[in-house]
Amino acid sequence: MSTAVRERLSPSSFIGVKGEGIISFGSGQPDLPPPPEAFEALGRFRDFRYGLIQGLPELREELGGHYPESTPANVVITNGASEALDLALRVIARREGPGAPKVLMARPYYYSYPEVARFAGLEPVFVRTVDGRIDLDDFSSKVEGCRAVIINSPSNPTGRVEDVGTLVEIERITARAGIYVLSDEVYKDLMYERENYLINGPRVVTINSFSKTYSMCGFRIGYLWSLDPDLVSDVVSMKTHTSMNTNILAQEMALAASRAPRAYIERQLEIWRARRDLIYRGLTDLGLDVWRPEGAFYVMPRVRDPEDFVWRLYREHKVITYLGAWFGSPTRVRLSYALDIEKIEAGLSRIRAYLDGR
Amino acid sequence: MSTAVRERLSPSSFIGVKGEGIISFGSGQPDLPPPPEAFEALGRFRDFRYGLIQGLPELREELGGHYPESTPANVVITNGASEALDLALRVIARREGPGAPKVLMARPYYYSYPEVARFAGLEPVFVRTVDGRIDLDDFSSKVEGCRAVIINSPSNPTGRVEDVGTLVEIERITARAGIYVLSDEVYKDLMYERENYLINGPRVVTINSFSKTYSMCGFRIGYLWSLDPDLVSDVVSMKTHTSMNTNILAQEMALAASRAPRAYIERQLEIWRARRDLIYRGLTDLGLDVWRPEGAFYVMPRVRDPEDFVWRLYREHKVITYLGAWFGSPTRVRLSYALDIEKIEAGLSRIRAYLDGR
Repeated sequence: MSTAVRERLSPSSFIGVKGEGIISFGSGQPDLPPPPEAFEALGRFRDFRYGLIQGLPELREELGGHYPESTPANVVITNGASEALDLALRVIARREGPGAPKVLMARPYYYSYPEVARFAGLEPVFVRTVDGRIDLDDFSSKVEGCRAVIINSPSNPTGRVEDVGTLVEIERITARAGIYVLSDEVYKDLMYERENYLINGPRVVTINSFSKTYSMCGFRIGYLWSLDPDLVSDVVSMKTHTSMNTNILAQEMALAASRAPRAYIERQLEIWRARRDLIYRGLTDLGLDVWRPEGAFYVMPRVRDPEDFVWRLYREHKVITYLGAWFGSPTRVRLSYALDIEKIEAGLSRIRAYLDGR
Repeated sequence: MSTAVRERLSPSSFIGVKGEGIISFGSGQPDLPPPPEAFEALGRFRDFRYGLIQGLPELREELGGHYPESTPANVVITNGASEALDLALRVIARREGPGAPKVLMARPYYYSYPEVARFAGLEPVFVRTVDGRIDLDDFSSKVEGCRAVIINSPSNPTGRVEDVGTLVEIERITARAGIYVLSDEVYKDLMYERENYLINGPRVVTINSFSKTYSMCGFRIGYLWSLDPDLVSDVVSMKTHTSMNTNILAQEMALAASRAPRAYIERQLEIWRARRDLIYRGLTDLGLDVWRPEGAFYVMPRVRDPEDFVWRLYREHKVITYLGAWFGSPTRVRLSYALDIEKIEAGLSRIRAYLDGR
């Protein structure tokens, strides 16, 4: 492939790519199946009409129950967390607000954050991280000039969980300044150690999804939650024109999944933890500098030549990894370990072969 | 309900509203079922992973075959026609182009058009219509200052089909000036008389959907087609960050529906035609001034006091209709006749009772 083609490589070059013999540490996609309850919803489904734009009332009732002081009116069901974030940013961009039309986010960041901010007409501003976690001093010095901040703990791509003290302080600073916090909590059920803390407050917009907890990526069911009734109303108004209701069948599947026993999530978590232990030890044994993953299913080793690493691993060893540069971290690469143990081991062997120059 | 609440009435007040004894001429939602093939796809479906952002290759192959000089690369599957329009406008708004950041559209218009244009940062500009069809002189005088135009034939809300001569002339004018044409053809299979003409050309973006032809509104499957590879690529890039793949199961259902025998569409058309004849005659018999519907399933009578008509019909006669003002036509109301014959007749009786002041 020419340099020009390599320069055009992006995560979307790999999303959905499946091929003979390829081991993909690329897309953040669970390989474990959804709870069987989700598919049981399919057999009896016969409705085909528009649903409420805001989402299925029973599903919003279920989700509202997970948040303080909430009713179904605080929840909007969306086409994945992606649409929730897009709509929230577009609505916030159209408002008068404190600060410039800027959005603060940690770097490394999930690759969509700067893009959706720019698409909404907002400028991304980046907070320094130390060992994959937010530098609170840098955050404090930059936040006052911003309209909103995005928090993502556990984090894609770093796999790290923010300190509770940091999250409480972010909550305090933003509440005082009236700055929106978009808290992307799609990995909140995938934590291996440390405490987490879910940010709350009148200007908080929590973004979540059934993709990771319930392995339902392809069905695109996410949601946002907020105590700000004007923001919820504006999001619903915008969605009325930009996509209408979220797929009604996927909402039924999500409702069925949400009623699966808690043991489903706990069993999955044990599988993820074993994979985390394996890949962390494997990459460390290869002599790579990595942050110990605490949540989600990503790990970001530092490598000597990230472009060569990603490109030659793909071409010569059939292993997909993602460039750290796509996440604002040009000295690293990102591996998703959403793979069974055998594939992780085989992938680690191929990485060893690449590093040994074989 | 207070005046303040009445002023907040909008189409989204009624979408998905179902109630005892209500007859709804509101939402543009077919009541006829999708082809059985669509539901057969459900029983055997077990995939749950991300799909390609651009959409299921087999579905794009099927759809690409309906357009000249096309391959699957010319098609993007979206969350209904709404998302196709939203993405296309957002991509066009971000480009350099001839003309100001304005979008030309006929008035009366589908109520989402001005909103999605504004959300994308584009200013809507309105073309005069004569008897519900585009005034070509007015079009010609306004188009050169615009970045894009939206065409919708058959039209929601007017139910009218543009003259072939008008469409050919629009194609010629826009091609010469390098102006994008977004041709919303979601009603192209629901035509009762007159010829239609599907606009084509290098800057044409055709928008379509499974919602109307295959009665699959709630599943949100639309698509766009274009011969402009950069536009397609930019739409896919944007969708990567704003919603990712369209629901994979709904795409399988759409593929199955698209393989249903052509007789399915023809049978539906006969049902729609009978309803069209009934409501057109009924409203004419009530002495109302209406444009004869030629396609889609809407009719727009002129009424003396549209606000009173919509509000009192709803409150006192349990009949939902939409204000023409929501479509840029303040002297009219819009009725969707996506109802069985008995309900249309009952609705007409209630409208007669309202007009008689009973």
